[in-house]
Amino acid sequence: MQRAAYQPKLPAALWGNVKAVMGAATQSVADQEEIKKLFPNTYGLPELTFVKADEAVAENKVFNVGVILSGGQAPGGHNVISGLFDGVKALNKENRLYGFLMGPGGLVDHNYVELTAEIIDEYRNTGGFDIIGSGRTKLEKPEQFEKGLEILTKLNISAVVIIGGDDSNTNACVLAEYYKAKNVPVQVIGCPKTIDGDLKNEQIETSFGFDTATKVYSEVIGNIMRDCNSAKKYWHFIKLMGRSASHIALECALQTQPNVCIISEEVEAKNLTLNQVVDQVAQVVVARAEQGNNYGIVLIPEGLIEFIPAIKALIAELNDMLAHNPEFAAMEAAAQRDYVLSHLSPANAEAFASLPMGVARQLTLDRDPHGNVQVSLIETEKLLSEMVGKRLAQLKEEKKYNGKFSPLHHFFGYEGRCAAPSNFDADYCYALGFNAAQLINCGCTGYMSSVRNLTKPSSEWICGGIPITMMMNIERRHGELKPVIKKALVELDGAPFKAFAAHREEWALNTCYIYPGPIQYFGPAEVCDQTTRTIFYEQNKD
Amino acid sequence: MQRAAYQPKLPAALWGNVKAVMGAATQSVADQEEIKKLFPNTYGLPELTFVKADEAVAENKVFNVGVILSGGQAPGGHNVISGLFDGVKALNKENRLYGFLMGPGGLVDHNYVELTAEIIDEYRNTGGFDIIGSGRTKLEKPEQFEKGLEILTKLNISAVVIIGGDDSNTNACVLAEYYKAKNVPVQVIGCPKTIDGDLKNEQIETSFGFDTATKVYSEVIGNIMRDCNSAKKYWHFIKLMGRSASHIALECALQTQPNVCIISEEVEAKNLTLNQVVDQVAQVVVARAEQGNNYGIVLIPEGLIEFIPAIKALIAELNDMLAHNPEFAAMEAAAQRDYVLSHLSPANAEAFASLPMGVARQLTLDRDPHGNVQVSLIETEKLLSEMVGKRLAQLKEEKKYNGKFSPLHHFFGYEGRCAAPSNFDADYCYALGFNAAQLINCGCTGYMSSVRNLTKPSSEWICGGIPITMMMNIERRHGELKPVIKKALVELDGAPFKAFAAHREEWALNTCYIYPGPIQYFGPAEVCDQTTRTIFYEQNKD
Repeated sequence: MQRAAYQPKLPAALWGNVKAVMGAATQSVADQEEIKKLFPNTYGLPELTFVKADEAVAENKVFNVGVILSGGQAPGGHNVISGLFDGVKALNKENRLYGFLMGPGGLVDHNYVELTAEIIDEYRNTGGFDIIGSGRTKLEKPEQFEKGLEILTKLNISAVVIIGGDDSNTNACVLAEYYKAKNVPVQVIGCPKTIDGDLKNEQIETSFGFDTATKVYSEVIGNIMRDCNSAKKYWHFIKLMGRSASHIALECALQTQPNVCIISEEVEAKNLTLNQVVDQVAQVVVARAEQGNNYGIVLIPEGLIEFIPAIKALIAELNDMLAHNPEFAAMEAAAQRDYVLSHLSPANAEAFASLPMGVARQLTLDRDPHGNVQVSLIETEKLLSEMVGKRLAQLKEEKKYNGKFSPLHHFFGYEGRCAAPSNFDADYCYALGFNAAQLINCGCTGYMSSVRNLTKPSSEWICGGIPITMMMNIERRHGELKPVIKKALVELDGAPFKAFAAHREEWALNTCYIYPGPIQYFGPAEVCDQTTRTIFYEQNKD
Repeated sequence: MQRAAYQPKLPAALWGNVKAVMGAATQSVADQEEIKKLFPNTYGLPELTFVKADEAVAENKVFNVGVILSGGQAPGGHNVISGLFDGVKALNKENRLYGFLMGPGGLVDHNYVELTAEIIDEYRNTGGFDIIGSGRTKLEKPEQFEKGLEILTKLNISAVVIIGGDDSNTNACVLAEYYKAKNVPVQVIGCPKTIDGDLKNEQIETSFGFDTATKVYSEVIGNIMRDCNSAKKYWHFIKLMGRSASHIALECALQTQPNVCIISEEVEAKNLTLNQVVDQVAQVVVARAEQGNNYGIVLIPEGLIEFIPAIKALIAELNDMLAHNPEFAAMEAAAQRDYVLSHLSPANAEAFASLPMGVARQLTLDRDPHGNVQVSLIETEKLLSEMVGKRLAQLKEEKKYNGKFSPLHHFFGYEGRCAAPSNFDADYCYALGFNAAQLINCGCTGYMSSVRNLTKPSSEWICGGIPITMMMNIERRHGELKPVIKKALVELDGAPFKAFAAHREEWALNTCYIYPGPIQYFGPAEVCDQTTRTIFYEQNKD
């Protein structure tokens, strides 16, 4: 593969000899007292920035490192590991890198492999997490930490790098705190990964994988748009991965300019009902039909349903009502519907009755092991187009609409998670990994690898470490108050959303599609090295 | 757009002065007498090849050309038109090119635009058919030909180029014959377009768009494979566009090496039942589970259902039974099922009963305007995974299977039809269009533009024209015998299928996935200029 030969561009700060500059002490974004109490040994640490050191550094000590991929795949994971490998070896050739297999479970269950140059070279600049696999085991319990410590001690590993999303980085910090409290000489470093884009804050400009995944989605959305604009006869309802935030949908909208893009955070903030969301889409269909355009593109974030306040309340009541309810489980379908309607509070019963039968039924079925409804099984794109179709039929009867409405449906998620990284993600990930080796060398623990200034050329990127506690607050999760990294939702007063809002009426009525095409690795920089629109707007606010 | 600057590589035969070399008279692939009778004026014409002419050609006459995009979109259509434009202008700067809008209907209804250099330059190397739009109106009737002639005469157009699939090219020949029989001075030239790959024969090595579309599908299939091989917990059932033949599925299988790829033509040839197809997939799932691998990839051609002889027979009987049957339409769902089961012949009743309820019901609903079931509404990928799941549950009870089976579903079609053309399709399409201008200049009518020798560098491609009647035979279509271009199905003794069959057992058990990545336009030739595996195997049989 030609792509394997690509040499990621390393920030100048990480070339040759490196010196750490300490910033001031830090505090968490909220709930400072509680977080400090929970992390007495890793709270309040200073931010740290690496700069080029003129003086030669004394011989680095020999150390071994373990690396873990945690949670859903994101493009560039292999480059974090190859950057880490190169960084660790650059510090001392004797250093070794071990990979724990199939996620955090590999640490607990002592499944690992030594990552040699031969293995690493096979995976440079490739997508996927298959070099060591990933998994969703949560590292939360002291028994797990102790089991992990056995193998870390055995392999003489003095630092673990956990590549994961917000939860995995929270757990990395819990682990760091645990080992530090016990005076165990194992450092823990996190790396910010998620295609969803919700691990982002003042210190972490973007999580890796978001750039590549949104470009892959925008490629196929653009292809569908071009088809739509050639055939001029279908409305395409395209659902995009991202349950907890709408960054992916927003970024794809900025890249491709669809007729409609729903942003869950806006739906929630405006307290819209599902019917109101449907109405908004139907109005665009009607307006386009009046111009003779019976086609269009609608982007829908996967998490929409859970952001609609009325549906959220309904789901919460259904979860309470139906979890472990053998009486209900024994009923016939029709009786179940009556049971639900008569037992729900009036507002929720109304929301339930407003849903298409199939979707309403889905909400009462297939509960997960916690007794909760599996919202991800709802095909939101079909739900929405079905409801829009009904609304249009009404409007037709009222002589307010006279078009044709033929919907088609798509869902893009798995298509983007393991794409080969864009040049941006290849460079960014490599820098994150290389930088993590430097953080280890400095003795840091409970830090996240941080590479910033990302809209500038990669030589000017700023590298360093951020104390993970700095990003934390206390939130209720599964009924319990927990210290967690604050999730970054789409901010309605943020520059990316504002850029979208400023254009969406024009995009709705007119056909302003952009067809970005496939990610290019070899061409001119203006083609190959564009960042996302999101980070562009965030860093160029004026 | 940087891509717009790409200059398609023109075959050497079309550089500068060009001379036509006539071959021997031709005959149709079958039914020679009938075809000859139907096409007395366009039958038996010689093949024609262009070669470089040393002597300067006399001043070319001035002529105007019309162009039509017919049927489903395929990558490269805009390059056929830009090649045609450049070819026509190279012959004489006074020549004009008109585009008829939204397909053959534009000719009949006199909707057109003159294609100027300004318009053409905006669309070079782009995907889609949006430059003039496409449509599915069939040019079949003398009234249409006469209506078309009005506008052709008015615009002084002496040649029409129809860019379309097998049916559209058949109709191009009918039109050519009609005008020639009437001694009307309008030539008709066809161009072979379809992503399905079923317009292919001894003379036409591949239809345009197949290369790009299969590369886009293989990109996303590869991404899903990498995800599958990282998470190691899902079976992905991926349906691929292509109802009338399985070339797309086969090509994608050769590019990506999935665990299973079903080839409809093989299912039909072996007279398999749906249950047997399900069993074959289930066996692969079981075999992989025995090695601890509860994940995999299954590719399914869109047309599968209609190739299964038992289902085909069932659908045929259902179409007869239910078309315009008000008694049936008035029944409740349960009664409808009983009605169908009791009225079907025993063999078809058995096939009907073997289907999942939802699918069986689908076959009795939603008839198209001809009273036929809309097979395309059946989600074959879900049907198959549901039946495989049931089969696995049985095997588990029989203690013959002890794995986990979590299926996910995808359908790729619209994602590939309007992608920006690969370098291959950009060059091939441009050559087809440029070559069509030469065919017009030679006075040809009833010919298809032909560019061959396609696995060689484009400078060595052989250009010329093939009499369309040469590809025809007589087939029954919608109950009538008609002269049509013979559809190319996947040949089970052809080199591409054999290459697949030779490896599929290895691919089933082991994980041999290939991740082709996105189409590259700017990189080294080995990355950017690969042809499809299909044409590679066809032209390198040994």
